[in-house]
Amino acid sequence: MGLKLYDLAGAEPERRFSPYCWRTKLALVHKGLPFETIPWRFTDKDAISFSAQGRVPVLIDGDQVVFDSWTIATYLEYAYPDRPSLFRGEGVRAVTRFINAWADVVLSGWIARLIVTDIFAHLAEKDRTYFRQSREKRFGMTLEAVTVDRETNVLEFPKSLQPIRTVLETQPYFGGEEPAYADYAVFSCFQWARCTSSFQLLLTDDLVWAWRDRLLSAFDGFARKTLGYPV
Amino acid sequence: MGLKLYDLAGAEPERRFSPYCWRTKLALVHKGLPFETIPWRFTDKDAISFSAQGRVPVLIDGDQVVFDSWTIATYLEYAYPDRPSLFRGEGVRAVTRFINAWADVVLSGWIARLIVTDIFAHLAEKDRTYFRQSREKRFGMTLEAVTVDRETNVLEFPKSLQPIRTVLETQPYFGGEEPAYADYAVFSCFQWARCTSSFQLLLTDDLVWAWRDRLLSAFDGFARKTLGYPV
Repeated sequence: MGLKLYDLAGAEPERRFSPYCWRTKLALVHKGLPFETIPWRFTDKDAISFSAQGRVPVLIDGDQVVFDSWTIATYLEYAYPDRPSLFRGEGVRAVTRFINAWADVVLSGWIARLIVTDIFAHLAEKDRTYFRQSREKRFGMTLEAVTVDRETNVLEFPKSLQPIRTVLETQPYFGGEEPAYADYAVFSCFQWARCTSSFQLLLTDDLVWAWRDRLLSAFDGFARKTLGYPV
Repeated sequence: MGLKLYDLAGAEPERRFSPYCWRTKLALVHKGLPFETIPWRFTDKDAISFSAQGRVPVLIDGDQVVFDSWTIATYLEYAYPDRPSLFRGEGVRAVTRFINAWADVVLSGWIARLIVTDIFAHLAEKDRTYFRQSREKRFGMTLEAVTVDRETNVLEFPKSLQPIRTVLETQPYFGGEEPAYADYAVFSCFQWARCTSSFQLLLTDDLVWAWRDRLLSAFDGFARKTLGYPV
């Protein structure tokens, strides 16, 4: 029996934009594990109550239920040791933890401030009140106020990517010569934007653009084929 | 013959505050390699002209001359493969590149804005004009203007450390159970402050404080023993 993944969806069932779910999907294709996805909305708490918590990704692997993208990555690495490694060693997993946290806290924060109204516009009707209330509380302002100056704010965005650029000046991926989970942790934040927003975050002559493009093409264009915007 | 390291010093020859030199010194003690340091000032360009560039650390190992802290770490790892590993694998080295860059660009930037006047106060007289001019150009304001609001700015500083805290919630070091070069890359920025400034950057109940304290104690208190401030 194949693996099953509860995957956040928008108004259109095929719009799958969660950065955390993208990490899990890329981990699964990296390992070459077949899986099916089940579209899920923020308010579908009952559908995943079996996991004893309320967020996706939730992965079902036989009688195993695993949630939280980092926990899932660790689970897959140890449950499928003969498949291509996500980390290539426990030492890499330890160090990747920081990159994963930086993507969560810093990079996601930057990107949210540039696209949160576009995310909102793609949500299922039933998710809108929850999303608006929870995110407006987090930002301390309306969603519209967050993105109103984005044409100006996006000019500052490339500076926040300088540590990524330093990596890419000497190697094609965070993982070195081949992509690893550290790449997926960061790429997932850009994919979140690509699936919901036509607002261009990167200039095409940026090393980060070229790296993102390589990952869009990886695994037969798995990330490129998904419903989103060609930016 | 032992290794020799050109190491940035202040007015007092024993005040050794360069974060880049700290990375190299910790890499050397991690590998258990005996070395001697040669105090060097910013304006001592002639003393290291043999390296065909003008910055420290510069490491001399027999007839090898190696500069740039990242290049030195890589050199030591490959030149001394039988010594304790700084990275524990090429995959870790690849992923550590990002953490090293984040420490250089983001963390150093934060800390500089809190302590740059204290660094200046500890410089050798002959280095002061160079330092003031180059740093004031970088900041676009006087050194004194940079730190004037530090009592307020330091309240925001802990937020910038959130990705570090996420790591330390599940493991004692960036490297996992034991420190690795990723730890030294980040720790070196705090050590830069500790060697030059009595201004307290961290609260004692912060996980980052406890991690820094473990590294101060590592290698028989190597980093704690140096001339600095007990903050």
